[in-house]
Amino acid sequence: MGGLTASWIALAHVVEPGDPRIGKLVQRHGPQAVLTMIENRHRSIPEPVSRRYESLLECGTHQVWTADALAVGARIITREDREWPTQIDDLGARTPFALWVVGAPHVRLSLLTSVAIVGARASTPYGEEIARRWSAELADRGITVVSGGAFGIDAAAHRGALMGGLTVCVVAGGVNVVYPRAHESLLARIADDGLIISESPPGQAVQRQRFLTRNRMIAALTKVTVVVEAAERSGTASTAREAHDLNRPVAAAPGPITSASSAGCHRLIRDHEAVLASSVADIVELLGETAMDVPSPIQRHPEMDEREKLVLAALSARRSVTLDALVRTSGLNVAEVSTALGALDAAARVAHDGQGWRLVT
Amino acid sequence: MGGLTASWIALAHVVEPGDPRIGKLVQRHGPQAVLTMIENRHRSIPEPVSRRYESLLECGTHQVWTADALAVGARIITREDREWPTQIDDLGARTPFALWVVGAPHVRLSLLTSVAIVGARASTPYGEEIARRWSAELADRGITVVSGGAFGIDAAAHRGALMGGLTVCVVAGGVNVVYPRAHESLLARIADDGLIISESPPGQAVQRQRFLTRNRMIAALTKVTVVVEAAERSGTASTAREAHDLNRPVAAAPGPITSASSAGCHRLIRDHEAVLASSVADIVELLGETAMDVPSPIQRHPEMDEREKLVLAALSARRSVTLDALVRTSGLNVAEVSTALGALDAAARVAHDGQGWRLVT
Repeated sequence: MGGLTASWIALAHVVEPGDPRIGKLVQRHGPQAVLTMIENRHRSIPEPVSRRYESLLECGTHQVWTADALAVGARIITREDREWPTQIDDLGARTPFALWVVGAPHVRLSLLTSVAIVGARASTPYGEEIARRWSAELADRGITVVSGGAFGIDAAAHRGALMGGLTVCVVAGGVNVVYPRAHESLLARIADDGLIISESPPGQAVQRQRFLTRNRMIAALTKVTVVVEAAERSGTASTAREAHDLNRPVAAAPGPITSASSAGCHRLIRDHEAVLASSVADIVELLGETAMDVPSPIQRHPEMDEREKLVLAALSARRSVTLDALVRTSGLNVAEVSTALGALDAAARVAHDGQGWRLVT
Repeated sequence: MGGLTASWIALAHVVEPGDPRIGKLVQRHGPQAVLTMIENRHRSIPEPVSRRYESLLECGTHQVWTADALAVGARIITREDREWPTQIDDLGARTPFALWVVGAPHVRLSLLTSVAIVGARASTPYGEEIARRWSAELADRGITVVSGGAFGIDAAAHRGALMGGLTVCVVAGGVNVVYPRAHESLLARIADDGLIISESPPGQAVQRQRFLTRNRMIAALTKVTVVVEAAERSGTASTAREAHDLNRPVAAAPGPITSASSAGCHRLIRDHEAVLASSVADIVELLGETAMDVPSPIQRHPEMDEREKLVLAALSARRSVTLDALVRTSGLNVAEVSTALGALDAAARVAHDGQGWRLVT
């Protein structure tokens, strides 16, 4: 089995999501060397991983995996792909090896300006109304709303964003596994208009522990995490903690002190693990300038070349950005960035000001 | 006219409350020298102050003022009195010159462990319920609840505290001026069971500006200021700002983001001018150790000697306090503190641990 891409996908099949021990080995030796270690039952490799790898070799090849993905309407992306959302690499040794994706939008571009709206399954009408309204307003500004597809706040967030924008559902099982069952039509709508993302192969059932490892992805994929209702002890707190540990801003909506569903939000605010958000303006402020300068390059210019989109998304109207910085941010090489800038300059969409490039507004 | 006490009371009659210009002169030269400057129409003295002083001299002497106070059931205290609440001196040049007090409790002792509960006049049933419940719980723990006697949150706070504890109302007019009129019976109950305090002589009508200068006293007299409901722009914010500027902890209660009456609280929390409080426990935490170690020396031991009370209030069960520190904190001299400690030690209420004195619990 050759190719980095195939190695990443193989790792995604045999390693438990978020396992930092294998992740560290991969950071040090690369995916292909670690697969060899797994094959040779190296002492650093847990027994179940090697066993799973043996079964995988019996029936799996890159072609089979691609076909399996296609069969459920999914594509597989790894960090070798330009569509890979590089912000997720901030997870370090806990970075996923591959992502299974259902949905047309470009994963990397869609998540460049994104907010996680998460919260309790045991929500109240008050919390659901906030989640729905804030998500609708964020989506309307071209900001992608990410959540976990669960009952309560998650569902309200997806529904609000679907009213006119982009929403991404990060699931704990395979992308074709409908969970919870009652959300079959909601998940189908998200797959039609947005994205469903998983780090596990199709068919993988949801497992209790994987909800927590999934939460790290929601925190890492987004720029800001917003908690709308959470009980004192809740899984939502784990998403907030992941975002906090990743130095991503965390916001929480306050509510009546008499509501148990707001107790977790109040604790986060009191302990300065989240700032208080009482409106979408508070969230947009946390997003910083980018969100306001580049509201929705994807939606506003669907005809644009993918490289031009990446360059546009990396530019600001307020300050100029050097060519070097554009190369770093866009993931393109110097020639590709220059070509894109040439086309954008000709269309009067960007301008050079002596120091660097900026958006023309 | 002789005597420091008489000088302070004269100043309280002729200087606008909280005027820092005269306050600074008093800090530098002392009250008697400033009165001479006022009498001589010194160029540092605003004309109206000198004019008011002339009228005052015509009809006022220390004896007359004391009689006037007595006539409305009040006593006058100045910083020359042991009952003076020394924490108010933190106001510096804006410290009141004298306080008119109605009510039996000892002003200094009552305010040693006190919390301000303030908020909007345009309150909601939600906010009133919080104010009433928190005040009742605080009062029950022997913590004095201070507020301003206004409609809405203030009234709910006083009413909650009256259910079994001590409450202090700091008014913007004279102590005998009923404002608002509808609170006549509430103010009468506070006068019976708690304290009504003003820095203005009896009969002084409330003035718009004096509500703001009054707020500085509420902030300075208390250890913690708690805001329960406030609109985005409100007078309550001035109390919070005064407390913040005095380095006193400020807490605010969250509420539904849909309630305009909570918008001011949310702003204070978001801007880190207040910490979020969702229960009395949060407030007690801000009060620190003292509140828990000495829940209510006044109410628990009504038969105690006043000096013993002052010493007890300055002690903690958790750490020992030296004799020097007790002298500083209690306002008593070494002999008085030692006598009190002797009596308290004999009653097994305090113990010496080699380094200093602590409470026996």
